[in-house]
Amino acid sequence: MEDGSPWSRVESMRFSSRVDISEPNPIAKAEATAKTAGRPLGKLNDSNPTRHALAPDLVPDIYSADPRGQRYAREALAAFLDMQEIGHCSPDDLYILSSTSEAYSWLIKLLCDAGDAVLAPKPGYPLIESIARLECVDMIEYQQRFDGSWYIDVAELKTALEGPDGNRIRALVLINPNNPTGSYVKPSEREAIVRLCRDHDVAIIADEVFYDYDLEPFEGNARLAGERGALTFALDGFSKMLAAPHAKVGWIQVSGPAEDVAEAKRRLDVIADDYLPMSEIVAKQIPALLEAAPLQTARVQERVRGNLKALHAMLDADEQGLVSVLRAEGGWNVLLRVPSVLDENELVLHMIERHGVSGQPGYFFDMTSNGYLAISLLPEPDDFRHNVYVVIDTVNELIG
Amino acid sequence: MEDGSPWSRVESMRFSSRVDISEPNPIAKAEATAKTAGRPLGKLNDSNPTRHALAPDLVPDIYSADPRGQRYAREALAAFLDMQEIGHCSPDDLYILSSTSEAYSWLIKLLCDAGDAVLAPKPGYPLIESIARLECVDMIEYQQRFDGSWYIDVAELKTALEGPDGNRIRALVLINPNNPTGSYVKPSEREAIVRLCRDHDVAIIADEVFYDYDLEPFEGNARLAGERGALTFALDGFSKMLAAPHAKVGWIQVSGPAEDVAEAKRRLDVIADDYLPMSEIVAKQIPALLEAAPLQTARVQERVRGNLKALHAMLDADEQGLVSVLRAEGGWNVLLRVPSVLDENELVLHMIERHGVSGQPGYFFDMTSNGYLAISLLPEPDDFRHNVYVVIDTVNELIG
Ligand SMILES: Cc1ncc(COP(=O)(O)O)c(C=O)c1O
Ligand SMILES: Cc1ncc(COP(=O)(O)O)c(C=O)c1O
Repeated sequence: MEDGSPWSRVESMRFSSRVDISEPNPIAKAEATAKTAGRPLGKLNDSNPTRHALAPDLVPDIYSADPRGQRYAREALAAFLDMQEIGHCSPDDLYILSSTSEAYSWLIKLLCDAGDAVLAPKPGYPLIESIARLECVDMIEYQQRFDGSWYIDVAELKTALEGPDGNRIRALVLINPNNPTGSYVKPSEREAIVRLCRDHDVAIIADEVFYDYDLEPFEGNARLAGERGALTFALDGFSKMLAAPHAKVGWIQVSGPAEDVAEAKRRLDVIADDYLPMSEIVAKQIPALLEAAPLQTARVQERVRGNLKALHAMLDADEQGLVSVLRAEGGWNVLLRVPSVLDENELVLHMIERHGVSGQPGYFFDMTSNGYLAISLLPEPDDFRHNVYVVIDTVNELIG
Repeated sequence: MEDGSPWSRVESMRFSSRVDISEPNPIAKAEATAKTAGRPLGKLNDSNPTRHALAPDLVPDIYSADPRGQRYAREALAAFLDMQEIGHCSPDDLYILSSTSEAYSWLIKLLCDAGDAVLAPKPGYPLIESIARLECVDMIEYQQRFDGSWYIDVAELKTALEGPDGNRIRALVLINPNNPTGSYVKPSEREAIVRLCRDHDVAIIADEVFYDYDLEPFEGNARLAGERGALTFALDGFSKMLAAPHAKVGWIQVSGPAEDVAEAKRRLDVIADDYLPMSEIVAKQIPALLEAAPLQTARVQERVRGNLKALHAMLDADEQGLVSVLRAEGGWNVLLRVPSVLDENELVLHMIERHGVSGQPGYFFDMTSNGYLAISLLPEPDDFRHNVYVVIDTVNELIG
C-alpha cells in the first residue's frame, strides 16, 4: 500500500456501473498521447465558440471546460484550504461545483447502483434522503444518540455494515458538525469509523459545511477533509463559510489510499465531464470571495455565539422553566426541549396562530422522542430574542 | 380536457417514483395557507443568512431560493421567448438551470425509474446516452435516416413504443435541429410524433439549442417549445444562442395538456428544490445577456453560413472530388462524406500525424455506414479553410 497503512483489506473499493470507463478508441488514445507529449492538436470538430473569437463581450473568457472546475479557481481554493487544514491540499484533489446537493448527487452516482444504499445520521439533514431517492438509492439511517451530549454508536454502524443490508451500503455520510444536533465527530469515533469504512470498502462522505462554527471549545477535533485512512470525500462550500448560499459554490475534496483516490477521480472525471464546470462568471469571483471568507465566518460566528448566549439568559430568566436547550457543539441551529406532553404539531400550529411564527419540531429530523423544536441562531439579535419569546410564551400558555 | 384536444388517451402520464410527493404535514399545510392568504410568517429555524443581514458585500442580494430560478430572471427570459415563438410563454413554465445536461438529468429523474428508457436519435448527441446511464436509465436509439436529406422514421418510433420495450420508454428525445446531422423536425413528422407521444403517454424532450442556426430556408418549420399536443419539455440555453457555453445558463420550458403540465411542474419543483436555483451572480447577468443574444446569434450565423459557403467552394474546386458534404439544414456542424473504403480511424490518425489535426468520424455518432467525418463551421475563416484542406489532402493522399 502506497500510503503505508497498517490495515488489511479484504476486497477493493467497489464503484457503480453507471460510469462508462470503457477503453478509449484509437483516436482518443492518439489525442491523449499528443497531450502528454505537449503537442497541441487542432480539432476538426471544435465547437467551443470561445476558442473561435465568438464569445460575447459580457463573458469574454476562453472556456477551458475543465471537468474539475476552472484551474485558477481550484488553485485559489487549494491555497486557502492549505491554511485551514493539517496536511497539504492539491488543486488536483478538488472538484468545484454548484452546491453540496450536486456533490451528493455526483458521489452517489459514483458509488451506488440502483438499489444500493448510503448510511446517514438521524437526526440529520433531510436532503440526503431526498437526493438519494432521486438517485434510486436508499438511505439507511444510523442514530445519533444523546446522553447529555451527542455521540455516534459505532457498534451500530458495524452491525449495519455486517448485517443483511451490508452489501448494499456503499457510503457512510458523516455531518461534522451535524445539523440540527450540532455535534462534531469526536476523535475517538473518527478513528473507529475510518477503520470500519476501510475494512468494509465503504467510502466516507464528510459534510463539513458547518465545521468552522464551533460553539464550544473542543479538544483534538479536526476536519475529515484530507483523511487518508479511507476513501474520503469532504464537502464544503460558500453557503455557510461565507453566509452566501446564493453564490452557489461548493466543492469535493478527495483523499484516502492512493489507488482508491486515483480510481475515484478517474470515474468522477467522467461524471463531471457530462455536466462541465460552473459558470465562468462565478468562478472568476472565487478568489475574491475566498479573501472575504475569514471575515464573513467571523461575523457569522459572532452572531450565532451572541444569540446562543442570549438564549441561555432568556431560558434561565424564565420562571416556569419549561423550555431548555440541548448542548450544541457547533453549527447554526440548536434544539430546544419542550415538555414532551405537548403535541409537536399543536405547538407549532399555536405559534403560527398566535404569533405568526412557524417552526420545525423534532419529528422533521426523525428525533426518536417527542418534545423538540429547532431554532436558528442566525437572526439579528432582536428578531432572535423575539423568536425565543414566542416559544416560551406559547409553551407556557399551552401548559400553564 | 382543458386544452380541447381531440385525441383520446388510454392512460395518464406516468411519472417516476423517485420524487417524494407525499402529503404535506400539518405545519407545511398551515404555512401554505398563510402564503396563499398573503400573510407573512416568521420562521424559527430560518437559516438563510441573506435574510438576516449577513450576506457578503460581493453578493449582497437576498436569496429567495426559488426552485424554478430567480423570478426576475424568468420574467426577463419569458419576455425574450415571447418575441421568438408563436404563443405566449409564462415565467411559471420556465425552469432556469446551469446546462442542458442538468436539464436532461432532472427530466430523466422526473420521468424514469431505474431500468426505464428514453428514445433518442442516432446519429445524435452522445451525452444523452451517458447521462441516461448515470441516471440508471437506458437509451434506446431510433435511426435518423438519410435519403438526400435526413428524416425520422415515425413508423419505427411507433414500433418501438408498441414493442416489448414500449412500457419502459418514458420519453422521446427530439433534437431540433439534430447534431451532427443538422436536420430539423419536419412539420409532418412533428404532427405524427406529437400524436404518438400523447397516445402512448410518453413525454417529449425537445433539445432546441441549435434552432436559430438554420443553414437553408425551411418551409413551415417551428420550435417544439410551447407545443400543447403532448407533454413537452423544450431545452435551450446560452451555450449556442449566445456562443457562451461558459455562462452555464440553460432552461426547460414546460408545455402540453394542462393537467400533465401541472403534475409535471409539481414534481419538477421537488427536484429543483433539492438543488436550488443557479448562482445569483449569474442570474443577475441574465437580462443583460438576453439583450446581447440577437446580435450574438447573428454573428455566429454569419460565421457558420460563411464557412459553409467556403466549404462548398473548396470541395467544388478540388479536382479529385473524393470529399463531399451532406445536406445540412441547421446547426454548427456538418458531416463530410469520404470514400467508404477508408478506415475511419486510419483517416483521422493520418490527419493527426501529418497535420496535427484530430477529428470525429461517423462511428462516434453511430452512423450506420463507414466514411463520415464531422466538421465544425465555427472556426475563424482561415482556420476553417485550413481544416477543410487537411481533410481533402489526407483523403487524396490515402486514396491517390
Ligand atoms: C448539513 C448541510 N450540508 C450542506 C448544506 C448546504 O448545502 P448547499 O451547498 O447545497 O447550499 C446545508 C444547508 O443547510 C446543510 O445543513
Ligand atoms: C444537441 C446539444 N444539446 C445541448 C448542447 C449544449 O449543452 P449545455 O447546455 O450543457 O452546454 C449541445 C452542445 O454541444 C448539443 O450538441
